[in-house]
Amino acid sequence: MDAIISALDVAMSRAHFIIVTGGLGPTPDDLTRDAVARYFGMTLAEDETLLKHVKELFRQRGMTMPETSRNQALFPIGAKKIPNPHGTATGIHIERDGRHVFALPGVPVEMRQMMTEYVEPTIGAAYCGGQVRTRTLRLTGIGESHLLAKLGDQSELQSRVQIAYLPHHGLLDLRLTAHSQDEHEADAQIAHAEGFIRERVGHHIYSTGATTLAEVIGNILVNRSQWLATAESCTGGLIADMITDVPGSSQWFERGWITYSNDSKRETLDVPAELIERYGAVSEEAARAMAEGARKNAGTDWGLSSTGIAGPSGGSEKKPVGTVWVAIAGERDTWVRNLKFSGLRETIKLRTAHAALSFLYAQLTDARL
Amino acid sequence: MDAIISALDVAMSRAHFIIVTGGLGPTPDDLTRDAVARYFGMTLAEDETLLKHVKELFRQRGMTMPETSRNQALFPIGAKKIPNPHGTATGIHIERDGRHVFALPGVPVEMRQMMTEYVEPTIGAAYCGGQVRTRTLRLTGIGESHLLAKLGDQSELQSRVQIAYLPHHGLLDLRLTAHSQDEHEADAQIAHAEGFIRERVGHHIYSTGATTLAEVIGNILVNRSQWLATAESCTGGLIADMITDVPGSSQWFERGWITYSNDSKRETLDVPAELIERYGAVSEEAARAMAEGARKNAGTDWGLSSTGIAGPSGGSEKKPVGTVWVAIAGERDTWVRNLKFSGLRETIKLRTAHAALSFLYAQLTDARL
Repeated sequence: MDAIISALDVAMSRAHFIIVTGGLGPTPDDLTRDAVARYFGMTLAEDETLLKHVKELFRQRGMTMPETSRNQALFPIGAKKIPNPHGTATGIHIERDGRHVFALPGVPVEMRQMMTEYVEPTIGAAYCGGQVRTRTLRLTGIGESHLLAKLGDQSELQSRVQIAYLPHHGLLDLRLTAHSQDEHEADAQIAHAEGFIRERVGHHIYSTGATTLAEVIGNILVNRSQWLATAESCTGGLIADMITDVPGSSQWFERGWITYSNDSKRETLDVPAELIERYGAVSEEAARAMAEGARKNAGTDWGLSSTGIAGPSGGSEKKPVGTVWVAIAGERDTWVRNLKFSGLRETIKLRTAHAALSFLYAQLTDARL
Repeated sequence: MDAIISALDVAMSRAHFIIVTGGLGPTPDDLTRDAVARYFGMTLAEDETLLKHVKELFRQRGMTMPETSRNQALFPIGAKKIPNPHGTATGIHIERDGRHVFALPGVPVEMRQMMTEYVEPTIGAAYCGGQVRTRTLRLTGIGESHLLAKLGDQSELQSRVQIAYLPHHGLLDLRLTAHSQDEHEADAQIAHAEGFIRERVGHHIYSTGATTLAEVIGNILVNRSQWLATAESCTGGLIADMITDVPGSSQWFERGWITYSNDSKRETLDVPAELIERYGAVSEEAARAMAEGARKNAGTDWGLSSTGIAGPSGGSEKKPVGTVWVAIAGERDTWVRNLKFSGLRETIKLRTAHAALSFLYAQLTDARL
C-alpha cells in the first residue's frame, strides 16, 4: 500500500497523465482501489450499477457471484468510472489540479480496450500543450538495419517527427509522432514523413494503424472471393491461430491441417512417402507438396505450408535448428522460400508464421519482398 | 536521453536493484546504452567479442551484418556483459555503491532468458537482507473468487507468506513468497503454505513452477506411450499452438485439424452432414463427433475438439457469442462439456483452449475439476 501511494506521489509531481494498471481484482493482493482512494482522500462505497454489472457477468458465465467478488462494486465517491464491458473491474479516473490518474485492470485485453475507448480520447481532449499526431506504418520483408540503410540520411525526417522502431519477429512497425501548436501543421509533418518513407520502402508497407498482416490478407481474399487453406508442421497451428484471430475469417479461411507426423503428411495432404524418405519432412520438396496438397484437398484457391526445425533438438549439421521452408500454392504456380532463423522454439515458430504470411501477401500483391 | 537519465537517478535513490528493458537495438531511438554510460560516466568503445557475436548471428540468418548494426558492439568500458545468445543486443550490468543496474533488451524471449540466467542469480547472490523463497502453484478448473471461498480464513497463511493471485484466462497461478533471515525458515514457511493450499484445493494444482498445462499433459502421455490428435473449430489452431510450444511434443502430438467450414468437418472428421444440419456446427453433438473423428482418423488414443462462437458476430439468442463445447474422445468413452464465456474474440479463444486442455488433464488424471 505504501509503495503504491509513494509511486502515485512521485508520478503526480512529474506528469499530467498517470496510468496505473492492475490491482483492481477481488483478491487480497488487489490494493490499487484502496491506495488510490486513500491517496486522494476519497471514500469507497458500494455502487449499485457496478454490483449489477458484476452479477450480470457471472450470470453470463452460468455462475452466481461469490461474496468475495462483491468488492468489485466498491468505488471511490467522486471519481469517474471507466467502463469495462468484458470484466468485473471497472476503471477509475480521478482529476486533481489538472492532473489525471487512470487506474485500469491488468488483464491485457480489457486494459487495451479501455485505453483505446476512454483513456486516449480523454487525454486527447485534455491536452492543451499543443497537438500530437501519431501514425503507425507496418512493414514486412525488411529488418531494422536494412530499413535504416534504405532510408539513408534521416536528419530532415527526424527534425519533423519522432520515429519509434518496433520490431515484432520479422515484422516491423514504425510509429511516427509529430508535435505542434497547430493541428494542420502536425498532420502535415506526419504526411511529409510518411511520403519520405513510402518513396523508399513503400512496397514493404502492408498497413497503417492497427490492421494485422492476416487481416490485410483476409481483405484481399474476400474482395476476390478466394479461399485459403493451411498445412503447418513446425508452426504447429500458430499461422491458423493468427488467421482466426481476425473477425470474419470464416469467410476466407476454409480449413487447416497440423501435420506433425509423417503419416499425417501422407494421409491428409498426399505427400508421397518416397518424397519424405528421399528429401526429409523438412525440405523444399515437402513444403511444396504440403501447400499443393492443402490447396487440392480443401478445394481452395490458395494453399500455404510451413515445415522446419523449431528446436531445441532435431537439428543436424546440414539442417540446423531454425532451418525452415514455407510454400504458397496458387492457381498458376507454387512458390517455395527457404529461411534460416536463430533463437528459441517460440521465436522460430513466430518468425516462421510471420514469414509465411508475408510470403502469401507478396504473392497476392505481386510484390517482391 | 534526459528522461532516461532522470529515471535512473530516481531509481538509484530508491532501490538496490534496477532493471531497465529496451533501447539497446541498432536504431536511432535506441538510447539506453548511451544514457547508462553517460549516467555512470563511462566511455563506450567497440568490443571485439561483441562484434564477432553480432556478425555470427547475421551469418546464421544467411546475411551480412549491415554497418548500422555495428553499434551493437559498443559497450561501456568497466561494465559487465550479460550474454544474449539469441540476439544482437548484449545486456549491461553496472554495480555502483552496492546498487546494481541491469540493462536488458526489450525483445521478450531474449529478456526472459537473460533475466533467469543472469539477473536473478546475481540478485540472489548480492541480496544480503535475508533469504527470499518463492514457489508458484498452478491451478486449473477454479477461479480466483471460488479459490478464496475454499481457502477460507487466510490470516494465518498471510502472516507467513505473501500470496500473489495471477489469473490467466481460466488458469490461475498462485505465487508464494517467504522472507526470512534464515533460509530453512523461509523454506518451511513456503512448505507450510503449500500444505495448507494443497489440503483444500490440491486436485486443482497441475504443476509447480514454470511447467505449462500442455507440458504436464505431454509428460503423462509420453509415460503411457499414448498419442493425441486435435480437431479445432472456434480455437482455430490455438490449442495445437500451445501443444507444439512444448519441446518434444512430436513424441505425443500426432496431428491436428482446423475445421472452420462445415465441409471440412464432414470431409476430414466424418461429421455427418445431417448432424450439422440438425444440431448446428456449434453443438454438443458436433463437438462429440469431431473428437471421435479426430481420434479415429489419426489413429490416436485421444481426440480433443472445440467448437463455439468466438464472436464478435455469429451469435444468436439461443447460442450467444461465447457459447462453446469442448470434447475428449478416449478408448472408454467420449466426454463433452458446455462452457459460456464473455469477452473479446481472442479472450474466448484463449479461455476455450485452456478449458479444453484442462478437460483433457482431468480425464487423464481422473480428477473432477
